[in-house]
Amino acid sequence: MSATIHRIGARPEPSLEPMIKMVAADMNLVNSVILDRMQSDVPLIPELAGHLIAGGGKRMRPMLTLASAKLLDYSGNRHHKLAAVVEFIHTATLLHDDVVDGSDLRRGKRTANIIWGNPASVLVGDFLFSRSFELMVEDGSLKVLKILSNASAVIAEGEVNQLTSVRRLDLTEERYLDIIGAKTAALFAAACRIAAVVAERSETEEMALDAYGRNLGIAFQLIDDAIDYASDAATMGKDAGDDFREGKMTLPVILAYARSEGEDRHFWREAIAGRKITDADFAHAIELVRSTRALDDTLARARHFGQRAIDALGIFPAGDARDAMVQAVEFAVARAY
Amino acid sequence: MSATIHRIGARPEPSLEPMIKMVAADMNLVNSVILDRMQSDVPLIPELAGHLIAGGGKRMRPMLTLASAKLLDYSGNRHHKLAAVVEFIHTATLLHDDVVDGSDLRRGKRTANIIWGNPASVLVGDFLFSRSFELMVEDGSLKVLKILSNASAVIAEGEVNQLTSVRRLDLTEERYLDIIGAKTAALFAAACRIAAVVAERSETEEMALDAYGRNLGIAFQLIDDAIDYASDAATMGKDAGDDFREGKMTLPVILAYARSEGEDRHFWREAIAGRKITDADFAHAIELVRSTRALDDTLARARHFGQRAIDALGIFPAGDARDAMVQAVEFAVARAY
Repeated sequence: MSATIHRIGARPEPSLEPMIKMVAADMNLVNSVILDRMQSDVPLIPELAGHLIAGGGKRMRPMLTLASAKLLDYSGNRHHKLAAVVEFIHTATLLHDDVVDGSDLRRGKRTANIIWGNPASVLVGDFLFSRSFELMVEDGSLKVLKILSNASAVIAEGEVNQLTSVRRLDLTEERYLDIIGAKTAALFAAACRIAAVVAERSETEEMALDAYGRNLGIAFQLIDDAIDYASDAATMGKDAGDDFREGKMTLPVILAYARSEGEDRHFWREAIAGRKITDADFAHAIELVRSTRALDDTLARARHFGQRAIDALGIFPAGDARDAMVQAVEFAVARAY
Repeated sequence: MSATIHRIGARPEPSLEPMIKMVAADMNLVNSVILDRMQSDVPLIPELAGHLIAGGGKRMRPMLTLASAKLLDYSGNRHHKLAAVVEFIHTATLLHDDVVDGSDLRRGKRTANIIWGNPASVLVGDFLFSRSFELMVEDGSLKVLKILSNASAVIAEGEVNQLTSVRRLDLTEERYLDIIGAKTAALFAAACRIAAVVAERSETEEMALDAYGRNLGIAFQLIDDAIDYASDAATMGKDAGDDFREGKMTLPVILAYARSEGEDRHFWREAIAGRKITDADFAHAIELVRSTRALDDTLARARHFGQRAIDALGIFPAGDARDAMVQAVEFAVARAY
């Protein structure tokens, strides 16, 4: 991409490495829980779940639980099981998302629904989701259960909301933010917040971590949605233009449409209705999201939420953990460049 | 159907009416919880969920929670919310089942996946499932949460197990019983058992209700599977022969295949492989499940589990509640006649 580089922090190259390093030992324990608890006497379950869980994801959400626990100097081990819960919920939603979207590629690999079919993906998603609740119940905190069951319901609501907004050019930026706040940011927020619950910290600290996760989640999704209009398909391991061809209303389209007139508006109406989805149409769409600065401003919005995530950490003591969490945000918003 | 009538009890006509009447007032309160808690700002959610929830089901599972509470003289109100939880879990699994099976008819009505599409059915199922956990968390009993989260995971496991057994003529009766024990009976068992938990009864009473529900659930599913080979399609509001055409391995087929030789075995291999699924083939299959007494013996197995359900109630005092629960079993196993 050709957009100018605007970084939040002063570091030359924001990286996820400090966070990955910081939680590496904990993550090994989380991975043990994940591998152990995705087992079943029904062989298809670990086979299918393993494809996605071992499929090269960064484990961003459980990593946030672990990093938040580090930030709070938590010395127990409840967060390992709960981080696995977060990853199970996430994996269940990915399995169902790929069925809903009819996706054939995720993280550069064939999706489970393509390999094993939609029925298996739906049911194994249900299993992982149920298993995640069993693990939460084992942890035994009603507060954690409340936070995660609420997040799960909000995620599902957000997914349905997104589904009913497909091909709806009248979707506003406000409603779009509601959708991504639900389908993506709710789990980021919960993943961070539960660390404060197990560490028995104050409501203020709990909600600060919630805000960090929530704003990071929104920034993360905005960047994801921008990347779909980047020319470099390899960036995400998914095909660029998928959102465009599916008529998904994301911020680049919302802004580009709002800022266009005449012929260009007509183009968007035809495209989002699914009547202009050739490669040439997609190239034209990219041109429009750039010329209207819709893409730049989607990235600017992402930086805004990223900055709020960073500032939410202000109440915590400076140190390596906080630095790593700040840099994770900078890394997330820099992904599109 | 032409099978001889063998009834368990002495009553001339077993009926569900005594149970329905006994819990009618409670069920109204459960229905209020259901209607209230299936709401969402996303209109598609109550619309789709309402189609199925208001769609003429007997509310068998929540009714069992209410009846069990009556049996125990429970005087609180926690069972209303928990009965709604049970119905939400059941509805979520129905939505996903219809997607998995590609069903177009349930209880004589078009299925949600036909009206709103598979993506909406998957996501609204996820919502109801998450919402059911929110309701359980509101109830606040870790023991109830453990029972229901475990049941949910077992159901999903059973569904995957069934999926991988489709078109597998080597499926044994034992493994078939495991599958229906998981996909159907686990929720029946949990629905009854949680009444003993809220009524703070002994482990013995809890497990007696678990056994009642579990055996009833198995009997219920056996009858359902027998009905698919009954000639009267209207009985279930679903098309007779669906299981046959989908190559689903149910007990009538397992027994008929085990008892056949030569040509008939060849027929079953072709049919279950999906190469003989015309109406004439289905008529031939019905003839075989009858001539081998596979259908009669499926019903006999159902009566066996029904009798175990009834006997599990032996530790509870005689009275109207117990009579109603006995008669519900007799009604369930008499459905196929």
